[in-house]
Amino acid sequence: MCEAAAYILKPDGREELFLADVDIIEPDGENLRLVSIFGEQKIIKADIHSLNLINHKVLLVEKKP
Amino acid sequence: MCEAAAYILKPDGREELFLADVDIIEPDGENLRLVSIFGEQKIIKADIHSLNLINHKVLLVEKKP
Repeated sequence: MCEAAAYILKPDGREELFLADVDIIEPDGENLRLVSIFGEQKIIKADIHSLNLINHKVLLVEKKP
Repeated sequence: MCEAAAYILKPDGREELFLADVDIIEPDGENLRLVSIFGEQKIIKADIHSLNLINHKVLLVEKKP
């Protein structure tokens, strides 16, 4: 399977797991909507920072309020 | 393998292939740097718009100049 885990890249460089087994990430107004392969949905006010698909990793950065 | 194809999402909705077999997408200053599983690198002034990992698809949108 080719899903990935989505992490929030924190200002101090830490990576905090936000959602595992992600299939879809798409804009939802000012936010991103993530959908896992199990249909779980999460919304976050963030941008997609980077991808490492072979390592199944997506990094998000939260938008400033 | 879990690489994806990166397409540029055009203003008219067309999707133009930019790089196949992408492993890594990461910021490079104002640009994005894409690296394929074969080591091919391409730079584009764009943001990551959306992902559909089960369909092996990444959409980019070019930044306004």
